[in-house]
Amino acid sequence: MKLSDYTLKFLQKKKVKDVFLINGGAISFMIDAFSRNKKINYISVAHEQSAAMMADAYSRMGPNFSCTMVTSGPGATNLITGIACSYFDSIPALHICGQVNTFEQKDASTSTKKVRQIGFQETEIVEIARPITKYSYKLKSPYEIRYVLEKAYHIATSGRPGPVLIDIPLNFQNFNINENKLKSFKPKKEISKNNYKKITKKIEFLFKNSKRPVVVLGGGIKYAKAENILNKFLKKIKIPILTTWSGTDLIDHNNKNYIGNIGVYGSRCANFSVQNSDLVFCLGTRLDTRTTGGVPRTFARNAKKIVVDIDKHELNKKRGLKIDLKINSDVKIFLNNFVKHSNKYSAKNEWFNRNFLWKEKFPIIQKKYFNEKKFVNPYVLMDKLSKFTNKDEIIIADDGAHLSWALQAYKVKYNQKLFSAFGNSPMGYSLPASIGASIAKNKKRIICIDGDGSIQINLQELHTIDKLKLPIKILILNNDGFGIIKQFQDLYLGGRYEAAGKGVTNPDFKKVSAAFNINYNVIKNHKNLNKLAKIIRSKRAEIIEIKIKPNQKIIPKLQFGNPIEDLFPLLPRKEFLSNMIVPTIKKKSKIIEIN
Amino acid sequence: MKLSDYTLKFLQKKKVKDVFLINGGAISFMIDAFSRNKKINYISVAHEQSAAMMADAYSRMGPNFSCTMVTSGPGATNLITGIACSYFDSIPALHICGQVNTFEQKDASTSTKKVRQIGFQETEIVEIARPITKYSYKLKSPYEIRYVLEKAYHIATSGRPGPVLIDIPLNFQNFNINENKLKSFKPKKEISKNNYKKITKKIEFLFKNSKRPVVVLGGGIKYAKAENILNKFLKKIKIPILTTWSGTDLIDHNNKNYIGNIGVYGSRCANFSVQNSDLVFCLGTRLDTRTTGGVPRTFARNAKKIVVDIDKHELNKKRGLKIDLKINSDVKIFLNNFVKHSNKYSAKNEWFNRNFLWKEKFPIIQKKYFNEKKFVNPYVLMDKLSKFTNKDEIIIADDGAHLSWALQAYKVKYNQKLFSAFGNSPMGYSLPASIGASIAKNKKRIICIDGDGSIQINLQELHTIDKLKLPIKILILNNDGFGIIKQFQDLYLGGRYEAAGKGVTNPDFKKVSAAFNINYNVIKNHKNLNKLAKIIRSKRAEIIEIKIKPNQKIIPKLQFGNPIEDLFPLLPRKEFLSNMIVPTIKKKSKIIEIN
Repeated sequence: MKLSDYTLKFLQKKKVKDVFLINGGAISFMIDAFSRNKKINYISVAHEQSAAMMADAYSRMGPNFSCTMVTSGPGATNLITGIACSYFDSIPALHICGQVNTFEQKDASTSTKKVRQIGFQETEIVEIARPITKYSYKLKSPYEIRYVLEKAYHIATSGRPGPVLIDIPLNFQNFNINENKLKSFKPKKEISKNNYKKITKKIEFLFKNSKRPVVVLGGGIKYAKAENILNKFLKKIKIPILTTWSGTDLIDHNNKNYIGNIGVYGSRCANFSVQNSDLVFCLGTRLDTRTTGGVPRTFARNAKKIVVDIDKHELNKKRGLKIDLKINSDVKIFLNNFVKHSNKYSAKNEWFNRNFLWKEKFPIIQKKYFNEKKFVNPYVLMDKLSKFTNKDEIIIADDGAHLSWALQAYKVKYNQKLFSAFGNSPMGYSLPASIGASIAKNKKRIICIDGDGSIQINLQELHTIDKLKLPIKILILNNDGFGIIKQFQDLYLGGRYEAAGKGVTNPDFKKVSAAFNINYNVIKNHKNLNKLAKIIRSKRAEIIEIKIKPNQKIIPKLQFGNPIEDLFPLLPRKEFLSNMIVPTIKKKSKIIEIN
Repeated sequence: MKLSDYTLKFLQKKKVKDVFLINGGAISFMIDAFSRNKKINYISVAHEQSAAMMADAYSRMGPNFSCTMVTSGPGATNLITGIACSYFDSIPALHICGQVNTFEQKDASTSTKKVRQIGFQETEIVEIARPITKYSYKLKSPYEIRYVLEKAYHIATSGRPGPVLIDIPLNFQNFNINENKLKSFKPKKEISKNNYKKITKKIEFLFKNSKRPVVVLGGGIKYAKAENILNKFLKKIKIPILTTWSGTDLIDHNNKNYIGNIGVYGSRCANFSVQNSDLVFCLGTRLDTRTTGGVPRTFARNAKKIVVDIDKHELNKKRGLKIDLKINSDVKIFLNNFVKHSNKYSAKNEWFNRNFLWKEKFPIIQKKYFNEKKFVNPYVLMDKLSKFTNKDEIIIADDGAHLSWALQAYKVKYNQKLFSAFGNSPMGYSLPASIGASIAKNKKRIICIDGDGSIQINLQELHTIDKLKLPIKILILNNDGFGIIKQFQDLYLGGRYEAAGKGVTNPDFKKVSAAFNINYNVIKNHKNLNKLAKIIRSKRAEIIEIKIKPNQKIIPKLQFGNPIEDLFPLLPRKEFLSNMIVPTIKKKSKIIEIN
């Protein structure tokens, strides 16, 4: 049995159904194994960067494990941005890179260690990928294959998940191995030291002493596949529900107790809620700067904080935010135990009512937006889109302004998915991610929310959509340039639109659609917006160009240095203060955040 | 003066005329400086990968130094493949990445060193880029800026050139500095210990004892800007001239003494020449596996070898190839000295005549190719193209089969440029490289030789060509898949075209041309080939799709384990032996090389 055949057999056992790949010299023996294994399918894509992003989104869909295969050198380095998406968002994926023959490698001899390259396209991908993978390893012997595959799989899927990379020399791929004689990997049994009964007691004590508790749901709940137990938890513990961007699709936005997303681009109501709370129960969120604001000590500053995180390093960050109860646990295990041991609990009506009032008073989508005559207001667009989508719709947004509009205004229904590659947030994610997600879900329809700048990055994959006949609905929110940068330049750089409005142009998206045999639609103003319902119901791929005002802003948005309750545009001070139970902070910090 | 303004002023002083960039949060203050400096131009491109490749080709054109600017995270990681092109081919370039604010960085506190990310889009680009840069550094203080820029510039352009990367936190970009108080970088004076007079004597002694000397010209001669002194050298030292792929455009291919390219994809005549020689004088070549064949000890095995290389590690490789005279020197300095101290020398007529005979007997372009009725034979195409091009034409080829055809069959005229990113050889280089080269040469016409698979990688930059109205002539050699992989699969994998012919398809290039307002042409067979002359004379960009037989081979090509004189298709043994002065090697090695 060849090592390549063994590898495919292993992947098959781990429920890999589709591998995203591009062939090339140093991976050619590995890929030839597909001719002898009909249980695994491969998708030959147009750019390795897309392959990694497809694998990322495929993993997010579950339940199958995802994998790419690429050749050495540029094939491997092209993966980097896509791998980073998985790393920062805790998504498991296995990347298999072909490497040059062992005898052609720099480290085959001490005399060649310091040259730049020996074999053709030899590149130290293991070192390059190390900062953005959980495990990155070049095979030293073909006999290691079982051990390394098992170890890589274990690392990718256990603890805080993440991507792993294995570099396999060409001469090993073709090597005959005796499957039965290979050494296996035995993971150390991780025994949790958590006494969940005692932890539950502590939490109940905090609840008992709280008047204004909230729960914050983070993406970690999804990555731990804890959605079911979360629902049980939310039935037992009734307190206002807030989400981070990554956690936004964990809850039906029509759920009465759901208040909204918190953070720099959160909603005023949810930010008032968390900032006025006296107890914040955080599940599967690392409480990053986008959630807490640029000055972490200002976040929920009068509240006790309980945080459940599988990554102990996240719990031990000393950046000004004090956690009162740190629970280092898989959030699924935690929730299972908590639900088992805890009593029912409900926040006071007074607190709930205050939250409901905020929700009513500060909607993201303002009525006046509907009256705009020119262009489509993106908040109106999201309002409509929320109404037109199915109950199990999958919506993938790209980055920047259109990501913010989608996350602020799209109303998630239970069982829908709405996500992006949040931590890495590359331009060009949503198009390949839509392909990966569609394939994971048996060629299901996907709503891809893209921008005029972003879609250009992986434009080549429009051909993959055409080739595979995937019913992806690509909304290009065209605001003629980089909206989020223009907003930053308006605020802090005197409206000088260098390389954001100025010097940035777009191809003609109608012609681009025609080039790839994708039906083109354009929506220029609110009058035509209802046709979106019909367009997304078609059975084929569609491009829908939506004309957005070039200087359309993200509203609201946090300004430099403010605590997250004080979003821009600032409320009149009197009104603002009337919403604050907790003392406000007078002095503005001079901290400058990235837009 | 802001640090950003200082940086642009520095670049201006170093003759940077154009910066290739994409704006983004963490680089926005730096880019704003362009609004205050009208001496430097920026090109806003569609993908950072292309920006790095444009900068690479821009540098190759000289004389100006090249630079990119990108944002943190995906902006920076998107550069990697492009940076690798410069690293492996010794091309200087400066990459400036924006990084998150210092107080948002993982290493701002020991408590956060082990988390995956603190600031939004924070990514350890310095570590990621280290294996493919000569210098990769994150600014620790704004006051370091002068020192670091000067050091980076020095490192990029001195010794064996290469790319460098500087990571600049956002809060530093906007920082006010006093230009006069900044510390400067003083490079150590490198004093060569070479006694060139003595070296010249040694070489002359070797010449005196040689009957069959050859000179091999490598890319290092270009990178050292030693073209003028090379010409003087070639007038003084008359011996058969051979080139590596990187060195192929150092000589007019009509030069009587020029025999051809050597190596795995070299010509039979040049390979017979070097393999039968008794003295090989190598200038600016690292003698990599593509040049020597997979078994270096078989290369020029009966010859004394003189090698001039600026990189001592390349000279000290112990991979079976013994160098008799190692000269660790800048090749320009070496040649200046050698020409000054040496006497005229000419190889014996007998040896010249033998070389001329090989050249006549084994042309790459065979007469029978012209008679093919269906498709365009790529060798015939290159023959025609050689005739249609101008005396200062710049031709940039991508990778794989079409690169091989171009390098084998295109006849370079003196002052023309023909290159690719040889060591890294990514799919997708030639299109952005053509843009970079055209901009470097004042919007000059460039011939871009691309493949149907390769062009898809950076397809988005067709819009940049349209936007800037660059007269780039894009030849898409369409052989319906990855030709070089199919050839490998035919030879070693039973013709199973997994992910090379099978599963790989192309968009309709006519429609793609229309999408980007680029004129489309198609050439299906030899009858229409002459129209290429007119098409490339137009003043606008053109796409010329050229239909190549799907299983068109690269001929000749070395097979696994053979010495480079014995190219496939193998000559009849009797004929083969009649061309060998040096003993042949009987036993075949079992080494497997990447195609």
